[in-house]
Amino acid sequence: MLIDGINYRTIWFSEDGNTVEIIDQTRLPHTLVILRLQTSAQMVRAIQEMNVRGAPLIGAAAACGMVLAMQEATDDASMELAAQVLCASRPTAVNLRWAVERMLAALRPLSPELRPAAARSLAQVICDEDVALNRQIGRHGLALLRSHYEKVGRPLNILTHCNAGWLATVDWGTALAPIYAAFDAGIPLHVWVDETRPRNQGAALTAWELGKHGVPHTVIADNAGGHLMQHGQVDVVIVGADRVTSSGDVCNKIGTYLKALAAHDNHVPFYAAVPSPTIDWRIADGLREIPIEERGADEVAWVHGRTKDGELLSVHVLPEGSPAANPAFDVTPARLVTGIITEHGVSRPDQLRRIFP
Amino acid sequence: MLIDGINYRTIWFSEDGNTVEIIDQTRLPHTLVILRLQTSAQMVRAIQEMNVRGAPLIGAAAACGMVLAMQEATDDASMELAAQVLCASRPTAVNLRWAVERMLAALRPLSPELRPAAARSLAQVICDEDVALNRQIGRHGLALLRSHYEKVGRPLNILTHCNAGWLATVDWGTALAPIYAAFDAGIPLHVWVDETRPRNQGAALTAWELGKHGVPHTVIADNAGGHLMQHGQVDVVIVGADRVTSSGDVCNKIGTYLKALAAHDNHVPFYAAVPSPTIDWRIADGLREIPIEERGADEVAWVHGRTKDGELLSVHVLPEGSPAANPAFDVTPARLVTGIITEHGVSRPDQLRRIFP
Repeated sequence: MLIDGINYRTIWFSEDGNTVEIIDQTRLPHTLVILRLQTSAQMVRAIQEMNVRGAPLIGAAAACGMVLAMQEATDDASMELAAQVLCASRPTAVNLRWAVERMLAALRPLSPELRPAAARSLAQVICDEDVALNRQIGRHGLALLRSHYEKVGRPLNILTHCNAGWLATVDWGTALAPIYAAFDAGIPLHVWVDETRPRNQGAALTAWELGKHGVPHTVIADNAGGHLMQHGQVDVVIVGADRVTSSGDVCNKIGTYLKALAAHDNHVPFYAAVPSPTIDWRIADGLREIPIEERGADEVAWVHGRTKDGELLSVHVLPEGSPAANPAFDVTPARLVTGIITEHGVSRPDQLRRIFP
Repeated sequence: MLIDGINYRTIWFSEDGNTVEIIDQTRLPHTLVILRLQTSAQMVRAIQEMNVRGAPLIGAAAACGMVLAMQEATDDASMELAAQVLCASRPTAVNLRWAVERMLAALRPLSPELRPAAARSLAQVICDEDVALNRQIGRHGLALLRSHYEKVGRPLNILTHCNAGWLATVDWGTALAPIYAAFDAGIPLHVWVDETRPRNQGAALTAWELGKHGVPHTVIADNAGGHLMQHGQVDVVIVGADRVTSSGDVCNKIGTYLKALAAHDNHVPFYAAVPSPTIDWRIADGLREIPIEERGADEVAWVHGRTKDGELLSVHVLPEGSPAANPAFDVTPARLVTGIITEHGVSRPDQLRRIFP
């Protein structure tokens, strides 16, 4: 995507081929910083600290992490250990494990000296495939948004939660891919952006992306979406996902479930935009089977931003001595999901197997 | 209530009788600042800027504002104008209008020279009555919490949204009155405190209150409550209200509706604690008839807190150029409300008229 006229992805190999470069998402929207990662340990840390985040992107990042690991040691034991450490860096999004397992499946049969080049090549494929999948999601989502637009006959109001834009992927995004496609196709629309506490990925990333693309949007507190739906101000909800079960349960950023309940209560269609690597075919019951990451209390207690003097810093928003809890994801049961937008088309949540034979 | 061993209310007349003093709630939890208000215009501003907030407290504050107005001019026209300006200071909570109308009803028949003393006397009654009503809410709520505690047989997990504690009233609180009463009665409990964006009244006020009283609590992002309910970690939800209709629709801080939906979906009882001045008997349909205040976008865009160096300041959390919207309240339909805790007892929402004959 374009940032001030320059084409970016969120992750790429540097020209020397030995370094992975990423947009540091903890510094947005205030400054655009590119980080250079030279070791697999640096990649693990970048995933944990959420310098890169978003299920598809951390899948791609883990694949690139395996490339860095292969520059460090190519023997079987080292490779398996690097894979384990990358897989353990965050627990909820299934893309991470999917990417690492795909890398391992390709690398294991190879003799160690072939592994660095093969890893580099496959990681590039994984990154490029992500872009292609998201383009397809955008195409299918465009058709869906067009039909909703034709139904309402005025600019379409779309609500989204967290960031499932190009910053959450290698490029294009999942939930935002249909929005970019619809906007570029001339469908008049406006996006309600949940700020998405505690890390504010909506306010910091989604609003920034949409602004750079020129898409009309308004940031709201996470609390506001239900009220807007009650008053007919939301026509469609589209979110991304960190893991979708075979039965169509959608695990996504904490708070997604609340928006799905409100959408259901107000007859607003609720979609998750999901590339196939986000579907975990091995499990059906999202509430029982998906591990929910509990992140540090400091993410609730401290808010990062820009002072009026332009300084970037964090402020503490709790009383001294008050503890905080920070579950990072929740599960929206399939019964609340109108449809899943995939690269193969839009499916009812309980019929995913039909479009993925 | 006690702050570091000293007994406070949120609002009181200074010893000279000509000034109203308030705890400045925009400075909590970081500093305890007492503001002295000498004119009715200052009171209007304190209500608008939310130096005082909470439906019962802004009712009491408006009554005290009428006392200040009577020190400025006691003729009919001035009195009616002061009343109008106070009533218009915030639109959603009905307590404000209730208090001003009660003051007017008492003052109108009096000759102007009697009005200042009468206003002072009635405002004190309104403040004292608020404390008494909340004590009764605490008593009835205690019985309710005790029965829930006996059912679950382990420490009770209560979720609350925004601040409906003693800071939202003259003393004791509405939603927190039962919690204080239960805690003081030895019922083991723990409170999940929604931080309540955009103004963070949960994180800044409720957590501070509970901490000062020694009540175990944990602050969570507003997004987290649904997930906690899905996993059996919430036994009861109790919130306050800014206006309740005769049919039991509950208008309260934005985001309350989302928690009520989640409570309903997970069979968690959802209560609103409401003194009778918060009930608007003239209206039945909360969604259509209650005016919802739209506050400034800066409340979403700027977050106030304490830096690691101890400085109090605000940081901007949006990209440059991204707009924000800030509806301050929403309406929870009566069908999602298990019960209303009033000074007369606990009522089904659709049977309020039975306990208020």
